Amino acid sequence: MNYRMVFYVIGNMMKSEAALMLLAIIVALVYGETDTIVWFVIPMFILISLGFILSNKMPEYRNFYAREGFVVVALSWLVMSFFGGLPFFLSGQIPSLVDSFFESVSGFTTTGSTILTNIEALPNSMLFWRSFTHWIGGMGILVFVLTIMPKTEGNSIYLMRAEMPGTSVEKLVSKVRPTVRILYGIYLGMTILLILLLVVGGMPLFDSIINAMGTAGTGGYSLKNDSIAYYNSAYIDVVLTIFMLMFAVNFNLYHLVFIKKGKEFFKSEELRWFIGIVAVAIALITIDLLPQYGNRVLETLRYSSFQVASIITTTGFATTNFDLWPSFSKYILLFLMFIGACAGSTGGGIKVSRWLIIAKTAANELKKMIRPRQVTTVKFEDKPLGAQVVASVYTYLAVYILIFAASLLVLSLDQYDFLTNFSAVATCINNVGPGFNAIGPIENFSNFSVVSKLVLCFNMLAGRLEIFPILMLFAPHTWKN
Amino acid sequence: MNYRMVFYVIGNMMKSEAALMLLAIIVALVYGETDTIVWFVIPMFILISLGFILSNKMPEYRNFYAREGFVVVALSWLVMSFFGGLPFFLSGQIPSLVDSFFESVSGFTTTGSTILTNIEALPNSMLFWRSFTHWIGGMGILVFVLTIMPKTEGNSIYLMRAEMPGTSVEKLVSKVRPTVRILYGIYLGMTILLILLLVVGGMPLFDSIINAMGTAGTGGYSLKNDSIAYYNSAYIDVVLTIFMLMFAVNFNLYHLVFIKKGKEFFKSEELRWFIGIVAVAIALITIDLLPQYGNRVLETLRYSSFQVASIITTTGFATTNFDLWPSFSKYILLFLMFIGACAGSTGGGIKVSRWLIIAKTAANELKKMIRPRQVTTVKFEDKPLGAQVVASVYTYLAVYILIFAASLLVLSLDQYDFLTNFSAVATCINNVGPGFNAIGPIENFSNFSVVSKLVLCFNMLAGRLEIFPILMLFAPHTWKN
Repeated sequence: MNYRMVFYVIGNMMKSEAALMLLAIIVALVYGETDTIVWFVIPMFILISLGFILSNKMPEYRNFYAREGFVVVALSWLVMSFFGGLPFFLSGQIPSLVDSFFESVSGFTTTGSTILTNIEALPNSMLFWRSFTHWIGGMGILVFVLTIMPKTEGNSIYLMRAEMPGTSVEKLVSKVRPTVRILYGIYLGMTILLILLLVVGGMPLFDSIINAMGTAGTGGYSLKNDSIAYYNSAYIDVVLTIFMLMFAVNFNLYHLVFIKKGKEFFKSEELRWFIGIVAVAIALITIDLLPQYGNRVLETLRYSSFQVASIITTTGFATTNFDLWPSFSKYILLFLMFIGACAGSTGGGIKVSRWLIIAKTAANELKKMIRPRQVTTVKFEDKPLGAQVVASVYTYLAVYILIFAASLLVLSLDQYDFLTNFSAVATCINNVGPGFNAIGPIENFSNFSVVSKLVLCFNMLAGRLEIFPILMLFAPHTWKN
Repeated sequence: MNYRMVFYVIGNMMKSEAALMLLAIIVALVYGETDTIVWFVIPMFILISLGFILSNKMPEYRNFYAREGFVVVALSWLVMSFFGGLPFFLSGQIPSLVDSFFESVSGFTTTGSTILTNIEALPNSMLFWRSFTHWIGGMGILVFVLTIMPKTEGNSIYLMRAEMPGTSVEKLVSKVRPTVRILYGIYLGMTILLILLLVVGGMPLFDSIINAMGTAGTGGYSLKNDSIAYYNSAYIDVVLTIFMLMFAVNFNLYHLVFIKKGKEFFKSEELRWFIGIVAVAIALITIDLLPQYGNRVLETLRYSSFQVASIITTTGFATTNFDLWPSFSKYILLFLMFIGACAGSTGGGIKVSRWLIIAKTAANELKKMIRPRQVTTVKFEDKPLGAQVVASVYTYLAVYILIFAASLLVLSLDQYDFLTNFSAVATCINNVGPGFNAIGPIENFSNFSVVSKLVLCFNMLAGRLEIFPILMLFAPHTWKN
């Protein structure tokens, strides 16, 4: 383990976080919340001081491999989350350190689960910072750092691999910096477009910025206790539904459009399945809900499509208390949490592509059982699936199940029923936000025990970092020299 | 598809079932329940008539491959279950045909979930038949038929492969008939030994036979509404705990002892893990339950170890209403359902060996992530794991998850809460018996809708036949000529 390099990168990351906090201070100045500025200045001061100490000079021995990549990513997210939660804690808005950490982890991991009972009590600067973490987390803190940090270019592939696993990264190897900048450009452009569309729909500018950041990061923090239901506007619901879905699509596909290969956009197998799953889920839930909405199809569609988009993209906004829906619709939403978004998007979950790889290989094995002598290859996105990719996906599934079960067992020591506990782990590990029963869309996570909250923080980080980096922190081998 | 061969084997199976029903008539005669005899005679008559028609003459074209094997196994269990439930239905003891089918499927698949609200109201002959299905199902109907049916020896390997998947069968290929007879001898011997031990403990002979059959098949049908709690005897609890565990061990290991290779018994990796999991589960639950039992360690151990053995072996007996236990203990029991027994035993569940293969390959993949250049082979039971075995295990897991989710969705249309529905699918697909909440150990499955009951029947059959044969029934390719 090259500790010097690890410290160096984390130090740079800390300085970046301090810089990002500046925006919250600007918001405080704009809204005359000068008393809140000090609660950002203190963590900024610590971040900058520690950051300069850790990244004082470039290490001479710069070797940086998979191990270092995993560790840097996992530790960065932990450190970022800790300091990101300090403004809430220091200001007394969130009186518990664990709760402020939870809120910050939930923000950076773009989960959107909250421990706040009254969101609207927060000053605007805090509301901004809380949702800004979604926007930062959405595209990966470190990928962000990469775009602004010089001199580590040669090592960046290991960081990107650890933070954005999957095949999509491989294609970007040759020109990491420009491509990441293009992706960020698309991300920023889509966010601005969404802000404009929301303002046009009558949403106040500040609300539009907050909700657009929650949408772009597929996070789900809103600034109202009733989430998006507060605005009660069909226009806003439709706009957000479309944009939630758009942010859950592999950003490399937008890049394809950008470089004028737009024809290939809808050739993506994952995208087509994603659209198909969304359509089927909306149809089933609409049919199930029709009687509740007096058989008004369009109104039912408005609520069902918003909620399906919100859950499968792992955003977590709500336009209605879907916890009161019939079990059939609730179970579908629960399953959508596990499916999740497309790989290479800002969304979480197990990802459509992983499920496709699982389904295709399983179907192929079943075929082989009937026709043992037939030789078959499984293709995904028009390429034969390599054994290593398949093994990695199944390993992901196995470790995911193990973490899920262990987390559930810890939560059982708490006070809640099975659906609450099951959906708490599901919504956190898949970075969705709300769950069912005691953590439904109009409830919050404040009454979980400290141990349960820390386990859920672990789940959120494991889900966001796609399990392996955070797991590596617990492997003794990782820490050897 | 060689339909003639399929019909021929199923016809023979039907004649065998009729023969097995004779025992119930003997019980009826012994207990003077002559009025119940007719309800066995009618299905026997149908079975024999249809059986002779279907197996009238040996087909000339006797090719019998994997496809035929899967189909014969799946159809046999369906047909057996249907006719096995007829005595309950015809006699009016179970007024609904679906319910009697459910009860019979639950019996043959050694699940032990019941729709009866008052078990003790059944006459002895019916009680006997109900539990006898466990004993028959325990070692596989068709393997049983093989031992008594002449002339199909050459094809029997495909039947055995379909009915008892896993590597254990392979070893028996060369001399199928004698080895199956030895296995049955061990099965019968252990059952008789258990009956004797129960009688010695003061249990009435009839009760001992019934409960021994429920234990041997890891089924769990008792003849009392309170299950084994009725006898309230520490001796009986301990004896049953030990025997439930013994019947959940791979029978090939007993065969090893039989052929004087006893030293290899405890070399079995699966067995050692099975024992380890049982020990850890008992320890955790005992600690969790101590306060409830006034910190009396031995008494707590008696109940915790019985219930752990009952659930992980997928038997389903109860000595206490474990649904009233704290969530931590209940969740552990729920997880044990998924783990299940050892491969090659009469128990159900996903099986310890499958989980071991999943865990070992996953751990190996994680190692490869830190040290990408290291070449490693994964060993199981001292042999390198073949890619085909690993693929088959992961396919099993994938299809299992799919069936589980789909079943849960159908059950959501019913009236119950999430834990009831989740544990209903879990207890049925893993062939355990009781679940939690509305289907806890002192409750039953009677209030589920017809659709839910049929889905649970499918789950029981899928679990017992280890998914693939029952799945093949739905593949269009299976039915092509």
